[in-house]
This record gives sequence, C-alpha cells and structure tokens, in this order.
Amino acid sequence: VTELDFTLEKIEKGGFEHFMLKEIFEQPEVVHDVMRGRVRLDEGWLRLGGIADYLDRLKQAKRIVICACGTSWHAALLGEYLIEEFARIPVEVDYASEFRYRNPLVGVEDVVIVISQSGETADTLAALRTAKEKGAMVMGICNVVGSTIARETVCGMYTHAGPEIGVASTKAFTAQVAMLYMLALSLSKGRTMSDSEITLHLRELSEIPEKVARILELDSQIKLIAERFKDAKNFLYLGRGFNFPVALEGALKLKEISYIHAEGYPAAEMKHGPIALIDEDMPVIILATRDNTYAKILSNIEEVRSRKGRVIAIASEGDTEVSRLTEEVIYIPQASGPITPLLTVVPLQLLAYHIATLRGCNVDRPRNLAKSVTVE
Amino acid sequence: VTELDFTLEKIEKGGFEHFMLKEIFEQPEVVHDVMRGRVRLDEGWLRLGGIADYLDRLKQAKRIVICACGTSWHAALLGEYLIEEFARIPVEVDYASEFRYRNPLVGVEDVVIVISQSGETADTLAALRTAKEKGAMVMGICNVVGSTIARETVCGMYTHAGPEIGVASTKAFTAQVAMLYMLALSLSKGRTMSDSEITLHLRELSEIPEKVARILELDSQIKLIAERFKDAKNFLYLGRGFNFPVALEGALKLKEISYIHAEGYPAAEMKHGPIALIDEDMPVIILATRDNTYAKILSNIEEVRSRKGRVIAIASEGDTEVSRLTEEVIYIPQASGPITPLLTVVPLQLLAYHIATLRGCNVDRPRNLAKSVTVE
Repeated sequence: VTELDFTLEKIEKGGFEHFMLKEIFEQPEVVHDVMRGRVRLDEGWLRLGGIADYLDRLKQAKRIVICACGTSWHAALLGEYLIEEFARIPVEVDYASEFRYRNPLVGVEDVVIVISQSGETADTLAALRTAKEKGAMVMGICNVVGSTIARETVCGMYTHAGPEIGVASTKAFTAQVAMLYMLALSLSKGRTMSDSEITLHLRELSEIPEKVARILELDSQIKLIAERFKDAKNFLYLGRGFNFPVALEGALKLKEISYIHAEGYPAAEMKHGPIALIDEDMPVIILATRDNTYAKILSNIEEVRSRKGRVIAIASEGDTEVSRLTEEVIYIPQASGPITPLLTVVPLQLLAYHIATLRGCNVDRPRNLAKSVTVE
Repeated sequence: VTELDFTLEKIEKGGFEHFMLKEIFEQPEVVHDVMRGRVRLDEGWLRLGGIADYLDRLKQAKRIVICACGTSWHAALLGEYLIEEFARIPVEVDYASEFRYRNPLVGVEDVVIVISQSGETADTLAALRTAKEKGAMVMGICNVVGSTIARETVCGMYTHAGPEIGVASTKAFTAQVAMLYMLALSLSKGRTMSDSEITLHLRELSEIPEKVARILELDSQIKLIAERFKDAKNFLYLGRGFNFPVALEGALKLKEISYIHAEGYPAAEMKHGPIALIDEDMPVIILATRDNTYAKILSNIEEVRSRKGRVIAIASEGDTEVSRLTEEVIYIPQASGPITPLLTVVPLQLLAYHIATLRGCNVDRPRNLAKSVTVE
C-alpha cells in the first residue's frame, strides 16, 4: 500500500521531486491560462468577464483599497504600483488583519479588492465583511472556485492556476500578479491609455510564458548558487519600484521553506538602518534589472560591496555592468518595468527551493505553516 | 588635550555613558517641549503656529501622502494611523525613495507631508520637490531649524527635540510622533471631534512625560533582560494596530546598533510565513498592551510559545494574563491605543541600547551608518 501511495504521489508530482518545484515549472502555463478567454492580441481586446458588469463603477472608484495576507499581500502591493501607474487611481494596500481592526476609512465611493489563493483566509474574509458593512463595493481575486471569498464578493476574477499543493505559494502569486496586470489595463482603457498602448502591454504579457520558460532553464545554475550560499544565517533582499514587492516575496519564500531569516527592503532604505547588518556573512540579493532606477541600484550594489557583503544580482540579459560588481549574476530576459516582477520572482523561487532542499527541509510542508490560514 | 576632550564629551553626555542613552532619558522633556506654546489644557486649546494659516487647506485635503525614510518613516506610518483614526482623511505613506521614482499620484487637491529629523535627508528632499512640481501643498516636520526641507516646504512644524547626536534616532522619533498626534487632533477639530474630545486626548498627551519617566525607571530590569538575550542571532518584533509601527521601529533600533538581524511584523502576519522561523533560538518581542486587539495578541503569544519561541512581552500595568504565558514581561503605564506608541517604544529603545553595549558595539556611531543620509 505504501508503495502504491508513493507511486501515486510521484505521478501527481509529474516527475518532479516536490510539488513546489512542479508548481514553479507550471508558471509559463499558468500565465497562459490566466489570459485565456480574456485577451485577444490581434485587436488589443481585453475582457475580464467576472467584473465586466462592474467595470464602470470600478473605474469611478475614488480610492481602491486592497486587502490580503502573506504572499497575496505582496501581489496586492504590485497591484498598487500597477493600478496607480496605469490607471492613475489612488490605491492603498492594507494587511487584512490590520484593516479589520482599524475602523478603516472606506465608504460607498471606494472599491475594496481582496486577494486570497484559497479564498478562505480568515483575516481576508473578515476584511471583506468589514468593507461590505461600510458600504464599499468588494471585488475578489481567488484561485479556488466557489470558495467563501469568491461567494461573498460582488464580483471578481479567478486566477485558474490549478490546485496549489506546496504550502509556499508560487504559481498562485504569478497568476495573481498577471491578473492584476490585466485589471490595471482594464481600468485604464478609454481613460488613461489608448487601445494601441493597451495592445503593447498585452503583447508584453503574452511574451511572459516563453520568457519564464527561459528562466526555468537556469535551474541548474541557480542550484549551484544555492550550494554556495546554503549555510548563510541571514539574507537581505533589495529591490526598487516594481521590484520592491518582489524583494519582499523572495525573502518570504526563503523564510517559509528554509527557515533562514531573510528580509526584503526597498533598496534605498538600506542606508537608513539595515546596512549596519552587512558584513562578509550577509548575502544580499539585489534585483538589478534595467529600468529607471538602474543607476541607483548599481550604487546600492557598490554600497553593499564596500561593506564586504556578498551580492547575488538578478540582471537583464545583455547587461555588462552588474557582473563587474557582483559575485553572482542570474540573467533574465529583458522586459519593461511594470511586467518585470513576473520574471524576477522566478529565480528567487528557485533559489529558495534549492537552498531549502539542500538544507534537508520539507519544502512542501514547512514546519509551523498551513496552506490556507483559516484561523485569525 | 585628549583628557580635556574626554571630559568635555562627558559633560555633554550629562553623566550618561552614551549620547543615545542621554537622548532616551530626555524623552519626557522632549514631549513637554513639543507641546509648549501649542497646547493649553484648561480650555482644550491647540494651536500649531507653523501651519495655522494653512489649516483649512489641510483639512480639505482629498488625500494626505506622507514621505519619509528610516525611523521617520515609522513615525509617518503612525501618522497614517492617527490621522485616519481621528480626522478621517485618507492617508498614504510612502518611502521617499520609492515615491520620487514612481510618477506619484499627487496633485493640487492633495497634501504631502515630509518628515526628516535633520531636514537634509536626500531622498525626502527629492520627494518634496517632486510633490511640489505636481502641484501638491507640501508641509514639513523637521527637528533642525532652518534646514533645507524646512525652507522648501510651504508650512511645517519643528519638533524642538534639541540636537540628536546618537546616530540611531530616539528622542527625534518620539517628538515626531507627538507632533503627528497634535496634527491629527488639529485636523479633527470642528470636523470629526468635539472640543471636549480633543481636551481628553490632549490631557492624555500631557500625561506622557510622567509615564515615560516611569518607564525609564525600569532601565535596570531591561538591562537584565538584555543580558539574557544578548547572544541571540535573530529577533522578531510583533505588534498590532498602533503598535505595529512600534514593532518596526524597535526592530530597526536593534539592527542599527547591535547588528542583530531583527525584523518587525504585524502580529497576525506571522502565521503567513515568519512563524516558520520560530524555534527555541528565536526571541520574539510582543507588544501586548491592553487595546481592542488584546485577545488576539494573547493568541499570537500562544502560537509563538507552542513553537518554543521565547517571548518578551510589553504589557500594561495591572495585566495578569501576559505573565502567565511569557518568559519576560515589561510593564508600562496604561494608556489608550492611539497614544500607546509614545510609551511602548521606550522599553524597546532601552533593550536595543543594552544589548548593543553588552555586545561591545559603538552605539553612538554604529558601523556603516550616517546620522543624516544626504546621499541618494
């Protein structure tokens, strides 16, 4: 019986060692699936069926507040950056657990978006109910169809990422971010963006599956890096702009599955405190892709190096500056700033995965954690 | 000559071992000074001279955005909680370094508040200039009179905390928070609060100096706790609501001067990841004062304990629950939620100070850090 179970589980894992690795590798398909039926490239066509009837009200929101927990909270933060950048509607992101106890400032003119993979996260559900009581329109982004949050929201969108078994969320995060990217574009249509601009952004999104697939080919390079850094006691993750929430997410992955204390920071904040931590024992992961803060990121790298910190950089293909300054560089395909997180998060997922497995941790079922946090 | 210098420095330190300790002990006086000429208790009178001419415009703000870095950013976060709770105006807090590179969403109807002890913080100054270009009214909160930020803002308030020499900010933070507390009340007057309510809150503020003085008497108890925990490699700091920004600030103090990797979290987020880090080597500082989330904080303490984490709690005098669950408790005077941060931060400053000195660190001039970050 044990043998049969083992075989079954192996089949479910599709040949991968762990569910988490399988789910990381499913991400090209996941981005594909999240776009299916919602995007047609030829005419810049974008239709989010689950919110179509409410789109006008969403566009008129005085303010959008996004509530979530954990990894979904990082997606929410990217949602803020995306919606503010594209649709120019003010967005506030709140921890669901803080929002609900705070007599939050939302009313009938506001839209509250709740994000939860399982659709059952207790704090997020409570935030949803608080927002409804205050008269806000509440929209959901969930993965599990028919979940409580999906049922209690006025409208929403499913991420269609398929079941996620690994406790540390990977493909669900990617699907949430792709969804928020499409939502930001939807809110911009006819207001802040022309159809041809929207087409350009959708085209970039459609190239993501292939680009993620190319990053996944770096798996063995990333495993080698993991071997070199697996015994570190602490990590810092730094990013700016669209890569700041990715730094938080990368750090959370490492925390969750390897039990190494990793912390994410907006890169420029480092000199206001965390830089005191940096010495030769402190690896620093820096997201250094080409965008409008690239020059600043290079000087952040130099600051870390001059304190003997060991830098692992994620840089854009074709970059020649970063490798001159850092010990390790992982090159990823080029992309414009707002869509970069869908790429930069992938090497961080793989790095966390390999460090954790090399340390002998149970990556699919890390200690102390539940897949869906249904307690408050 | 060396001897004379030493003596002079000793005089400047007023008998304290370090400037930082002196500045921590100055906090009762600092809160007094920040209220001087601005508050009269007998009639609920509150007048913030530096912004008096602009108060109506401030009250009409569609949205307030607060930009800052480091410790001032934690004060800003408290500003958000205070202004939203009291004045019911939506507030967004942004890292100055993120705001400036983000094509931020502010315009003529918005007010931007910049906070900087030195008034010279490069990123904050750049955020100020960006906000002005976009037409927002910019107000400043600085400590150094005549500083660049003070000069370039339309209106503002000085914290009058006196020179701060220790690189890790303590009394400047307290003064900023007290200032934001008075600002939130000012914005509420005649709108969301009656004069008698304002009087009550001002009365609470006027009791803070004496309450802080009582916390400072716990110095030797806190030093004993520091001795027990000084060799820890990592710390978590947890708080909810008004105590969440205090958790961040407590962790930053420890990082800055002891080089221990400490991280602050909203307590309820712990179960979405950081709880995986908790074992018998991970001390967890939990802010467990009596407020509307007290019952939830007790269950957070139990979660940590059941994973063998060692808890140091900050609790309210008269509390009997917390000590049954934790290894160490520091009792502080009772106060209502919004004003609690001015108390809870003090034991965390002392704890960081003692841990750092016991480890032989130079607390007044920690490695890698500058007092005023005038580079970007």
